[in-house]
Amino acid sequence: MAVYTEVDDAQLEAFLAEYDIGELRSLKGIAEGVENSNYLLRTDQASFILTLYEKRVDAGDLPFFLGLMDHLAEKGLACPTPIHNRKGVALGELAGRPAAIISFLEGVSVRRPTTLHCGEVGRGLAALHLAGADFAIRRPNALDVHGWRPLFEASAAHADEVARGLRDELARELDTLEAEWPDHLPSGVIHADLFPDNVFFIGDKLSGLIDFYFACNDAFAYDLGICLNAWCFEADGSFNTTKARALLQAYSAKRPLSPAEFAALPLLARGSAMRFLLTRLYDWLNTPKGALVKPKNPLEYLRCLRFHRGVHSPTEYGLDP
Amino acid sequence: MAVYTEVDDAQLEAFLAEYDIGELRSLKGIAEGVENSNYLLRTDQASFILTLYEKRVDAGDLPFFLGLMDHLAEKGLACPTPIHNRKGVALGELAGRPAAIISFLEGVSVRRPTTLHCGEVGRGLAALHLAGADFAIRRPNALDVHGWRPLFEASAAHADEVARGLRDELARELDTLEAEWPDHLPSGVIHADLFPDNVFFIGDKLSGLIDFYFACNDAFAYDLGICLNAWCFEADGSFNTTKARALLQAYSAKRPLSPAEFAALPLLARGSAMRFLLTRLYDWLNTPKGALVKPKNPLEYLRCLRFHRGVHSPTEYGLDP
Repeated sequence: MAVYTEVDDAQLEAFLAEYDIGELRSLKGIAEGVENSNYLLRTDQASFILTLYEKRVDAGDLPFFLGLMDHLAEKGLACPTPIHNRKGVALGELAGRPAAIISFLEGVSVRRPTTLHCGEVGRGLAALHLAGADFAIRRPNALDVHGWRPLFEASAAHADEVARGLRDELARELDTLEAEWPDHLPSGVIHADLFPDNVFFIGDKLSGLIDFYFACNDAFAYDLGICLNAWCFEADGSFNTTKARALLQAYSAKRPLSPAEFAALPLLARGSAMRFLLTRLYDWLNTPKGALVKPKNPLEYLRCLRFHRGVHSPTEYGLDP
Repeated sequence: MAVYTEVDDAQLEAFLAEYDIGELRSLKGIAEGVENSNYLLRTDQASFILTLYEKRVDAGDLPFFLGLMDHLAEKGLACPTPIHNRKGVALGELAGRPAAIISFLEGVSVRRPTTLHCGEVGRGLAALHLAGADFAIRRPNALDVHGWRPLFEASAAHADEVARGLRDELARELDTLEAEWPDHLPSGVIHADLFPDNVFFIGDKLSGLIDFYFACNDAFAYDLGICLNAWCFEADGSFNTTKARALLQAYSAKRPLSPAEFAALPLLARGSAMRFLLTRLYDWLNTPKGALVKPKNPLEYLRCLRFHRGVHSPTEYGLDP
């Protein structure tokens, strides 16, 4: 949540001259997106998001991200769409950074999702998976099961400073996940970060999905595992089966789960909890005190992990096979 | 530049229910305003700025600030206007903070003002002074000539760490300013912080003045002294007389300067440089390393101060008496 690169009016006027989106009326740096600098840009025609890609984003991935948003929007998914300039190009350069202008999506994210919201998210996730199925560019998931051990090793020596016994518990869990991780589930483009921050609603209706900067190719059902963690735990750490059922039923009504996907759900949800636990643990141990962005507590995901480890059948998530 | 207080969707919906401004469509924290939390709020009717007043702003001053914006807008000045709720009240409470919804003003601030911009600012400043003349509430200037010595004393012991000899130079300057400061110049509401950040333009035309949170009652011509420092020095520290002339001529065409105001300009400009030098010096010495907001270099104003000290006649600013 920050603006890292400042854009001055003269640079912006020159950049906008390449586009056919009207005359500049306003530019405000917005506190959104940890990885990039984002501005709300208004012209006399419409509002847009101007994104400057900072060094944490690999410039080589930008054709995937921008192309994916183009592809999804063309398929009718409610998501931000890159604006192409007069030469037909969506990716430019501004203030020394790769930069793109993206359509502005209305809606607000919800702090405390209801069951209605969870149903909407299930439907939206299935729509995303279906719409992305024939997208041509591929991007491997750098944070998939093979990426967890190096992350774990980078934090293991200090893990017990965060919670006693954490190192051993994660080591055992990682062994299990690596041994049992399913290999041949239906795959395609997944969002990989569909937390409440990244879903907009107008009232109870989903108005769009945003922030595709973790999107990659992986098992569709793994994205469901992420959503179970992101949407179905209450603030006190308890699992809300009603919300899970709403999410999974709405998803599977649009994209039915195969028996293998259904059976894998608890393990996928454990893996997802591990993935967020490990990145948060790393940030927790490596963020200097007083930094701009405060790291989030990794232990929230330890509770999720333990919950899913105790799930004996996917029917406990409220969905029938 | 920060959002200090987060507002969740449920709190916001409840707050908006008191207003007649349409249905919520979007809320983005914006990186604007060092003192307060600001959001860009969109409804199905219009865009607004939602401001939550943080503890650096004295809640007792809010009726002055909001009343002033109301008053100025009613007089036709292009500035943000507080929105009154169904009970007719502009000041509410949100997320435990005093909060107000303000109209959204289009335009962008300019990084490198031209002579045209400076003329617009002179005209705009005169319009502000005329429009504010009959505003009923008064707010003394806490950072006027009487406020500088305590500020100086709070930093004096460490001033020479910033520049050798700074302590003695400021002490002498302060003696002069206190001895010679004019007492009975025409006074009224001044902006007191009209830097390029706080003036919006669409193309070369001024579209509005913003950020009235330093506004107070003081000599009108002191505001001109502030603008000479804020708008007429180049990045290399040189003074641009062409810009000063444009600013002063445009101002005096709308609100002619009395002979006493004209004569006092160099001293007022020195005082203004002292005021910003002292607050920056204090922040420079007292901001912890790695803080969210980086302090600005105070020495920029030492150059301004020295320049004005060398001005022997106000005609050197390009204006005839």
